[in-house]
Amino acid sequence: MDVIKLLEAVKSGALPIEDAALQLKTQPFDDLGYALIDHHRKLRSGCPEVIYCAGKTVAQINGIMKNMLENGKSNVLATRVTAEAAQAILKQYPDAEWNSSARTIVVRRYPTEKNGKGKILVITAGTSDLPVADEAIVTAEFLGNDTELLCDVGVAGLHRLLSKLDIIASARVIIVVAGMEGALASVVGGLTDKPVIAVPAGVGYGASFGGVSALLSMLNSCANGVSVVNIDNGFGAGYIASSINKL
Amino acid sequence: MDVIKLLEAVKSGALPIEDAALQLKTQPFDDLGYALIDHHRKLRSGCPEVIYCAGKTVAQINGIMKNMLENGKSNVLATRVTAEAAQAILKQYPDAEWNSSARTIVVRRYPTEKNGKGKILVITAGTSDLPVADEAIVTAEFLGNDTELLCDVGVAGLHRLLSKLDIIASARVIIVVAGMEGALASVVGGLTDKPVIAVPAGVGYGASFGGVSALLSMLNSCANGVSVVNIDNGFGAGYIASSINKL
Amino acid sequence: MDVIKLLEAVKSGALPIEDAALQLKTQPFDDLGYALIDHHRKLRSGCPEVIYCAGKTVAQINGIMKNMLENGKSNVLATRVTAEAAQAILKQYPDAEWNSSARTIVVRRYPTEKNGKGKILVITAGTSDLPVADEAIVTAEFLGNDTELLCDVGVAGLHRLLSKLDIIASARVIIVVAGMEGALASVVGGLTDKPVIAVPAGVGYGASFGGVSALLSMLNSCANGVSVVNIDNGFGAGYIASSINKL
Amino acid sequence: MDVIKLLEAVKSGALPIEDAALQLKTQPFDDLGYALIDHHRKLRSGCPEVIYCAGKTVAQINGIMKNMLENGKSNVLATRVTAEAAQAILKQYPDAEWNSSARTIVVRRYPTEKNGKGKILVITAGTSDLPVADEAIVTAEFLGNDTELLCDVGVAGLHRLLSKLDIIASARVIIVVAGMEGALASVVGGLTDKPVIAVPAGVGYGASFGGVSALLSMLNSCANGVSVVNIDNGFGAGYIASSINKL
Amino acid sequence: MDVIKLLEAVKSGALPIEDAALQLKTQPFDDLGYALIDHHRKLRSGCPEVIYCAGKTVAQINGIMKNMLENGKSNVLATRVTAEAAQAILKQYPDAEWNSSARTIVVRRYPTEKNGKGKILVITAGTSDLPVADEAIVTAEFLGNDTELLCDVGVAGLHRLLSKLDIIASARVIIVVAGMEGALASVVGGLTDKPVIAVPAGVGYGASFGGVSALLSMLNSCANGVSVVNIDNGFGAGYIASSINKL
Amino acid sequence: MDVIKLLEAVKSGALPIEDAALQLKTQPFDDLGYALIDHHRKLRSGCPEVIYCAGKTVAQINGIMKNMLENGKSNVLATRVTAEAAQAILKQYPDAEWNSSARTIVVRRYPTEKNGKGKILVITAGTSDLPVADEAIVTAEFLGNDTELLCDVGVAGLHRLLSKLDIIASARVIIVVAGMEGALASVVGGLTDKPVIAVPAGVGYGASFGGVSALLSMLNSCANGVSVVNIDNGFGAGYIASSINKL
Amino acid sequence: MDVIKLLEAVKSGALPIEDAALQLKTQPFDDLGYALIDHHRKLRSGCPEVIYCAGKTVAQINGIMKNMLENGKSNVLATRVTAEAAQAILKQYPDAEWNSSARTIVVRRYPTEKNGKGKILVITAGTSDLPVADEAIVTAEFLGNDTELLCDVGVAGLHRLLSKLDIIASARVIIVVAGMEGALASVVGGLTDKPVIAVPAGVGYGASFGGVSALLSMLNSCANGVSVVNIDNGFGAGYIASSINKL
Amino acid sequence: MDVIKLLEAVKSGALPIEDAALQLKTQPFDDLGYALIDHHRKLRSGCPEVIYCAGKTVAQINGIMKNMLENGKSNVLATRVTAEAAQAILKQYPDAEWNSSARTIVVRRYPTEKNGKGKILVITAGTSDLPVADEAIVTAEFLGNDTELLCDVGVAGLHRLLSKLDIIASARVIIVVAGMEGALASVVGGLTDKPVIAVPAGVGYGASFGGVSALLSMLNSCANGVSVVNIDNGFGAGYIASSINKL
Repeated sequence: MDVIKLLEAVKSGALPIEDAALQLKTQPFDDLGYALIDHHRKLRSGCPEVIYCAGKTVAQINGIMKNMLENGKSNVLATRVTAEAAQAILKQYPDAEWNSSARTIVVRRYPTEKNGKGKILVITAGTSDLPVADEAIVTAEFLGNDTELLCDVGVAGLHRLLSKLDIIASARVIIVVAGMEGALASVVGGLTDKPVIAVPAGVGYGASFGGVSALLSMLNSCANGVSVVNIDNGFGAGYIASSINKL
Repeated sequence: MDVIKLLEAVKSGALPIEDAALQLKTQPFDDLGYALIDHHRKLRSGCPEVIYCAGKTVAQINGIMKNMLENGKSNVLATRVTAEAAQAILKQYPDAEWNSSARTIVVRRYPTEKNGKGKILVITAGTSDLPVADEAIVTAEFLGNDTELLCDVGVAGLHRLLSKLDIIASARVIIVVAGMEGALASVVGGLTDKPVIAVPAGVGYGASFGGVSALLSMLNSCANGVSVVNIDNGFGAGYIASSINKL
Repeated sequence: MDVIKLLEAVKSGALPIEDAALQLKTQPFDDLGYALIDHHRKLRSGCPEVIYCAGKTVAQINGIMKNMLENGKSNVLATRVTAEAAQAILKQYPDAEWNSSARTIVVRRYPTEKNGKGKILVITAGTSDLPVADEAIVTAEFLGNDTELLCDVGVAGLHRLLSKLDIIASARVIIVVAGMEGALASVVGGLTDKPVIAVPAGVGYGASFGGVSALLSMLNSCANGVSVVNIDNGFGAGYIASSINKL
Repeated sequence: MDVIKLLEAVKSGALPIEDAALQLKTQPFDDLGYALIDHHRKLRSGCPEVIYCAGKTVAQINGIMKNMLENGKSNVLATRVTAEAAQAILKQYPDAEWNSSARTIVVRRYPTEKNGKGKILVITAGTSDLPVADEAIVTAEFLGNDTELLCDVGVAGLHRLLSKLDIIASARVIIVVAGMEGALASVVGGLTDKPVIAVPAGVGYGASFGGVSALLSMLNSCANGVSVVNIDNGFGAGYIASSINKL
Repeated sequence: MDVIKLLEAVKSGALPIEDAALQLKTQPFDDLGYALIDHHRKLRSGCPEVIYCAGKTVAQINGIMKNMLENGKSNVLATRVTAEAAQAILKQYPDAEWNSSARTIVVRRYPTEKNGKGKILVITAGTSDLPVADEAIVTAEFLGNDTELLCDVGVAGLHRLLSKLDIIASARVIIVVAGMEGALASVVGGLTDKPVIAVPAGVGYGASFGGVSALLSMLNSCANGVSVVNIDNGFGAGYIASSINKL
Repeated sequence: MDVIKLLEAVKSGALPIEDAALQLKTQPFDDLGYALIDHHRKLRSGCPEVIYCAGKTVAQINGIMKNMLENGKSNVLATRVTAEAAQAILKQYPDAEWNSSARTIVVRRYPTEKNGKGKILVITAGTSDLPVADEAIVTAEFLGNDTELLCDVGVAGLHRLLSKLDIIASARVIIVVAGMEGALASVVGGLTDKPVIAVPAGVGYGASFGGVSALLSMLNSCANGVSVVNIDNGFGAGYIASSINKL
Repeated sequence: MDVIKLLEAVKSGALPIEDAALQLKTQPFDDLGYALIDHHRKLRSGCPEVIYCAGKTVAQINGIMKNMLENGKSNVLATRVTAEAAQAILKQYPDAEWNSSARTIVVRRYPTEKNGKGKILVITAGTSDLPVADEAIVTAEFLGNDTELLCDVGVAGLHRLLSKLDIIASARVIIVVAGMEGALASVVGGLTDKPVIAVPAGVGYGASFGGVSALLSMLNSCANGVSVVNIDNGFGAGYIASSINKL
Repeated sequence: MDVIKLLEAVKSGALPIEDAALQLKTQPFDDLGYALIDHHRKLRSGCPEVIYCAGKTVAQINGIMKNMLENGKSNVLATRVTAEAAQAILKQYPDAEWNSSARTIVVRRYPTEKNGKGKILVITAGTSDLPVADEAIVTAEFLGNDTELLCDVGVAGLHRLLSKLDIIASARVIIVVAGMEGALASVVGGLTDKPVIAVPAGVGYGASFGGVSALLSMLNSCANGVSVVNIDNGFGAGYIASSINKL
């Protein structure tokens, strides 16, 4: 908002005082009582609000979804959707896409602009890390990126990873999902000059502490280009990779 | 108890020794075996005892409730009431008010004195924080205060909060409920000169550790006027806000 | 700022466009490169900015202090001042008041308005808690409150506390400082209907973990009216008590 | 075993070499494959082995019980018995005593010697602490002690506790069970010269961390005569109180 | 205080009203400003107050010591005395006994009643645990008990411990001090029917976490008669052992 | 691979360039999309890949199993198999061996070479530790070792362990499984000159923290020859014991 | 390395077998005994190795530095340089640039290619965060980027940050350094569509736990585009920002 | 001791009763008051006692050393020797070997039997891990093993490690020392069929928590043959490697 221009318009009479006041004050969101839908976020951060479903009732999710589709004129991505919630949403929106591994719902009503500039590569240490990787992939694709998955290349069998160096070299941004000791992030970080986003996964034996062990490993990575998101936060990794990939 | 007066009455014979001894010793509570109902608390702290139901059997809850209503002559607030316990209580007290979000039961038999001096504002960062906020609201209103709710104004969309500055300015005491990183407490604390009571909420991704992350954030708030209660302790926040609001 | 009035003034010509724009944009702080002095805070929160000296060089502290005294036209409170920093500051401001127990510096150039409405009582469990209590007292008095100190009334000798019930009854707001198991906060909370602000102190045997044990005790207080600030945060307790005492 | 006497008996021929060797080597326990029943413990520590049922199958529990009753010639106490296990055991031993609050089974076939010298007093802060207190009481009585229960005298209503000072004075050993901030242990410890055994209870709000908060409080007690057992370990407290009460 | 007797004395005129009131109200402690000396504790808990010196200035320690010796008419035990403080105290009280290993000062002006009924045995796992053991021994002897020390019998060389079974059998109460994994407490607990008080010691390799590892071991002891005090809290162990030994 | 020889074969024409390139590049694993089966591991580490089933679907487990049996020409060991997954696998492979205590499946199609050089002894502190011990035993035997089990010889009844010294002396490698305070590892470590692998078990009272207490104990063992694996990681212990036993 | 081409050259005799073997095996690093200098890293990751000086002797640092300058033909960045080490290095390399706030040494012998595509903005919450911010700035500039610093715009005075929105909008990558509750990362993340790298700073009151509180806040950020590096890891943040800025 | 034979000798009169009793009871250690020197350990575990110097005075260390050399007839290894203690010991024993990096003292008076069967390889991730590696090497060599050191081959530059595969293949036992994220242990574990002992090192950035991050990584290693010792416990790793190498 250009304040000088607005004030000149007020002075000249071109803009009524009440309208100017409104422009200075108006709120670009809808108030549902239990949620303020932030329609401005798409402009501000390049991405519509995403519905994080944990702790929300189905009625609340449906209400937010309806408002975003109709008032926000945007596609909708919902994460951490339980199977129960998914069934209820699919009744409301039969064209919704439910990914049971990623636990996501996507409702597409508008075309997605493919404006990611390169490929986002998602690498997992093991098969058990797939749900987190899938959440990252769904998110990155929802935001207009191409993705590729490299699964089960953990460091206990290093040659599996080393045989895929060409795939690693072809990516613009890399997401590494790993549980247990999370060593894969450091190893990948040492093999590339691209930014690596590490996601600790919560699966593992006793002292993995629900992903804390992998989280600490990744924060302490001896490889330089590695930053970290929260445990099991595939969505966050996909989002950040997308924001980098659009630069 | 005025000891000098009591002793003068003893010396003059106006008060039998046994009665005086009784007055010096008598206990202002009822002993149910599994609970000592503290009828003195209302005088001492301005609020009747509240029934914290976690870890109590339905029989114990009903017994305490009956004693408080009949012997204590006070309204009753029960917190952390499971749906099962609520159904059993509603059979006993059909006029009881069950709030399924706040998980509270209120039984009203006596008028509530509205002696809070201003408005208690409860602000939440997200929709998932509503149950904790509701517990705070039920508590504050039970204790005779006016309340207002401002929901889903987390810091990721700061303009939502900034558009509500007038509501913030109208409160006498503010409660902020937030999970994840709990940043809302600091931001609100920086926008007001009123006391802010922060409640960490237990909802969140992996390393939120059931609210510990938000708790630590709030304890380390860079804004000055913020004090903190236990994770998910909406009741405590409502109680403290009320004790401040009655000053 | 009343936007409608400002715009009317612009329209009427009473306020030049440039001045109005300035008012809408101007920043109420000074930029020292290493610090942005927030002169607006006094209006917004009723208290000038306070200098938290940990991690700041003496040159930085002196620079901030000079700016606040001269540009901000306010008295200055500095906390966590080491003995070394204090000596350097006292050379610059010989009238500064250095409290070696509280580790505070106060420079007074303007009268303090005594606008706290009652007395703030600071209670400590032991002698070792005095430095934290002193920081709370210096802060509360700097902000215009009367204070009283009740020292060494920990729960291991309950009669010491019980003999002081009249002092407790005379306070409007109570601060409890306790290390070790921090039980004093709960006991005091059970004896009063006034708000209690609990400050965990960092002194103690092995598993006190630098105050964490007391912090957890206080967060889990079975008494209702207790809220908590950070470990050893006497300043925060004094500030909050003041904001409550001014209601 | 008196080695000199044994060797003299060998030299004199009163004791055959093989028998002596056996006495020096023989193992006072039965080997069930999945358990070595320690029949020697009763002599060594004054108490037969107690069956800790967590992690054991019903078949294992029944096998151990049978061996202890028949070969060990001792009464049996089983702790942490689930309702399912209890039903199965009651089928086998219809005279077994199942305490659903304490989660204990007692099978009595031999008289219990009442050799505790005084009364063991068990105090709880709240109603929710009863199951732990009951485990302590069952244990102490199984081992031949008199017990008394004082329930729901937490520090938020101090007069409840103070009205029971005579009961406290009448005990030889005191067990304090408390969750939340565990302050009751310190307060009781300050009111008596008898040994106090503190048991942290696992019930509580968010940052009680399943009893860790109470545990830390009790370890850091400012009262001197307080020692601590594991969270919810009513059995251990009852056992230690008994070993002290038999001195 | 016998209230009936007091009131009869009032009624009969044997006790003036003012004196009776004073008896009911008077505080059995001295107020030094920074400390309330609890002269009543000796009667209440069988032991005079002990001066915990951590966090106290030398002036405060000397002031408390003087008051206890002169007004309290009791011997004095000070713990956690730094070498610096000790030198200052020795100037004031040349007959004070400074134990540099235990870090204690004892000032004896009155005879100590030897009323412990048996021997308190203090066992250490290693040489490094001696300072904590010494604090326990000084405390127990100050309180009128006989003690014996068994040093460096850790479980890595079990025969060292097994060769001392007669000494273990001769004790009435046992204190076990151990760092690292603290296994000695369980082993001793399995060899005796006497109460065992375990003290975790803070010395050890990396993941001993300043005694936390030993603390957790001791709380989880598979031997039944073991209760625990805080890390390095030799004083507490000596105090509790004494309170048991006087039963 | 001998590079010189390979290159000589290329130069002489004995090996076509394409084949040599293939040998230098070829990947010794199968790509199932959700898993890369590492057939090379058997050569590299002497053991085929083991299927860790936690977090894998039954379809994935069956797919991996099929590939390993058919393409890898190796027997299969699957760990952490739930009862549900086991039933599904047994339908597919009726000759599979399901061990419900160890939660393992073994499918044997090829002879196992008994190349362990001595006996691996597995010792447990209590009956509750059996499932972890069984996982170690199944693993060690799958890898070609002889094993023996010594169950329920925890340190609270030391004579049980001491009566088995001959069994301990007969082992080449020892695995100790213990929960609670994990003291057994240190005691066994002090009685032998053979390598001891300690496995913390997750069963226990409150502050055992799911095995963390035992883990810390074992890491801090005062006995020298003790190394540690993750909580409840019987598989890892069996694997390491086997790799040592084959030296 | 193109294996086919290399093998063709071998077959044709153009490349001797020994040379080919060498090329396949040769190690692109220098072995100093205490360090393997990785000269290949510059090619692989676009950045020469950086000397992390913590835990290294001055002799080791100087040796590595000499090797990198002379054999590696690259400029040198050393981080975590103590003042003592810096003085020793400056004697050896008088043209070295010592930044005492960032604790870095830069030795420049070759031109730095300015190949960062936009501006890296470093924002701090407070003055105390400057050293970490400075380490990030030195690193980013060493790697060929333009940087800008925005200091002391923490959320307690939100208008300070809001007045700088144009600066935030001008950046291509943003680094946020904040201690205490770390809320600034979330607020900045909500105001931009650029990637935000959050660095928790270790300065703060009691329960900040050396930066853990800020670390958890940042990992749990409710704003989407925020990834995190280790506490105080300004170097890592600068490196990652540079790798993003070069895309 | 053969009990049958001993008893036969007693019966035949060949062995006097008192001598037999002595043999059954005698203690194979010397009691220095502050230490029980375990001369039996060499027989029992194949290694004389080692002096862990942390927490011991110089006088104690010298006394133990003297006893071991003279009475125990064994060489001496002392670990965690401070520079101050080392100087004092060197005065007493000028032929003592002080390793300032490993912080060890070795006094050799008797030949060392080289009975390790293969080579123990010690690998470090970085230069900063050298002191821990050196402690492991000194220990392993003291116990009669050959060792080799591979330094600074951390996973950020994987080719450094891969170029040393022949050295890895030549070892019988491998020790991996790594701080930060400790990923090297998993990578090495995946490349060998030999037992790997992982030692977490305490050096690192913020959230390495003094080695806890590396410790957790190593416990959660996805490679199978990895067991772990305490943080910085080079001695323990060397000892275990030796006990394996002697099999």
